[in-house]
Amino acid sequence: MRLVSYSTDGDALLGIVDGETVTSLTGRIAGLPTDMTGLIAEWEHFGESIRQLPRSPDYKLSEVNLLAPIARPGKIYCIGLNYPTHLAEATDHGVEAPMHQVWFSKPATAVAGPYEPIKRPIVSIELDYEAELVFVIGKRCRHVPAERASDVIFGYCVGNDVSVRDWQLRSGQYTIGKSFDTHAPFGPWIVTADEVDPKDLGIRSFLNGERRQAANTGRMIFDCAAQVAHLSQAMTLEPGDVIFTGTPGGVGIAMNPPQYMKAGDRIRVEIDGIGFIENEVVDEVSGTTWDEKK
Amino acid sequence: MRLVSYSTDGDALLGIVDGETVTSLTGRIAGLPTDMTGLIAEWEHFGESIRQLPRSPDYKLSEVNLLAPIARPGKIYCIGLNYPTHLAEATDHGVEAPMHQVWFSKPATAVAGPYEPIKRPIVSIELDYEAELVFVIGKRCRHVPAERASDVIFGYCVGNDVSVRDWQLRSGQYTIGKSFDTHAPFGPWIVTADEVDPKDLGIRSFLNGERRQAANTGRMIFDCAAQVAHLSQAMTLEPGDVIFTGTPGGVGIAMNPPQYMKAGDRIRVEIDGIGFIENEVVDEVSGTTWDEKK
Repeated sequence: MRLVSYSTDGDALLGIVDGETVTSLTGRIAGLPTDMTGLIAEWEHFGESIRQLPRSPDYKLSEVNLLAPIARPGKIYCIGLNYPTHLAEATDHGVEAPMHQVWFSKPATAVAGPYEPIKRPIVSIELDYEAELVFVIGKRCRHVPAERASDVIFGYCVGNDVSVRDWQLRSGQYTIGKSFDTHAPFGPWIVTADEVDPKDLGIRSFLNGERRQAANTGRMIFDCAAQVAHLSQAMTLEPGDVIFTGTPGGVGIAMNPPQYMKAGDRIRVEIDGIGFIENEVVDEVSGTTWDEKK
Repeated sequence: MRLVSYSTDGDALLGIVDGETVTSLTGRIAGLPTDMTGLIAEWEHFGESIRQLPRSPDYKLSEVNLLAPIARPGKIYCIGLNYPTHLAEATDHGVEAPMHQVWFSKPATAVAGPYEPIKRPIVSIELDYEAELVFVIGKRCRHVPAERASDVIFGYCVGNDVSVRDWQLRSGQYTIGKSFDTHAPFGPWIVTADEVDPKDLGIRSFLNGERRQAANTGRMIFDCAAQVAHLSQAMTLEPGDVIFTGTPGGVGIAMNPPQYMKAGDRIRVEIDGIGFIENEVVDEVSGTTWDEKK
């Protein structure tokens, strides 16, 4: 099942996508939570009703505005250096798997919709893309063994771990270079886990139609289950938490010379069986702001 | 003014602390938000009413349970290596100011109250403390120049950037070692910015009554204003966002041999003019959990 957050004229609504149609969930089931995080948290209660809901498409997919599936994730954690091809291009030493998982984070303010513009910052020109499989946590949990991780993964999305390379690399700590507004686009929907084999998905990115990355998620050094196991040893994972699972080789900084994104560029990420997101790059508008709505 | 989140028998309430008394705000002012983040976001509307509210203490401070001032901050960002004395003990090279601010993060699930136990993880014995001044963002903002940072800082707290050293250091990225449950205790209240000079505050930590850290916030390499300026170049800061401003020398890992915290230890952090927090260390209870409430 493909669950979407969408809008037609303002309010965010929940729906199901079938082919090229959207069936609204909002208002159809008594007591249904109004946001995706709430829906995921109460999936055990509502999931079966949703599966059995007669489909009566309310919109064509092309008529609605698809939003980020989760507007404000409680946390967004991202693993780095998780494909051999990216590790190789990211180090001077060729392929050497890291001894431990490498984690950084993005704030909820970085979320962008699947087709929303990505802002190129005022403070840097080194704007880069990273095609990534994203998964969404379904259950509050700690200390989940890898072999039980599928119990707590609700579903999967397509994501782009947009990166500002100079800010990412110059202090040694990646997080701030990954934290810029609009630099966590994901979507276009959540495909529930029963329909996805996260260990065998083609993943590709295209910049202005030119293929830049092409790999299979089976090449991850630490798979989704290992990521859940590791993270949940440290922290409570909660429904609606969002995990970016790493990018394969082919990013702009690794080209010779490095090629960064600029205003007008279109960056597309697609994953077999899930879908694609495509974001246009726009220059951030200059100016000091207080209390400005995004 | 000292604003607290507290409970007496369950629900979280908002109040003002004067000396040893608490005046409840909840229910006293029409339309007042029920949580601290909401109150901060609407401070321009409610602040003056709160200042003029006749004080009629409802509780002695000792009668209430003080909670973390903000239960679920939208973001918690933390600067590293921000006092010369800590930088010196953290490197092999003596004092050398970093060229750029070093930032990492904690998730909202790491928050703990000012007197709540800190959990020593199952997966590590290297549990350390870091006494820190914490500030709270008051206004949604981007690109705030350092000289205007005071416009967007709502107030200050005492914090402990609890750290799991092996997890912090072994991948090169600090964030996961800073992200464990209960490892972001702060409070005991928010002192509004009009009553605090963040550039001249004595800050100290005590482990089981023995002084471990003693410094003045004036020794920060990047002061609070510089931190706001830097962060807001990258991301939108929002009301209720929490910033940990770095720790001075004297942490456990820098002792010879390193001294880590264990169950039964009491770690106290105090800052002149704000107050203190004190947390007992307890061993995390073992076991895989699904849907367990914290």
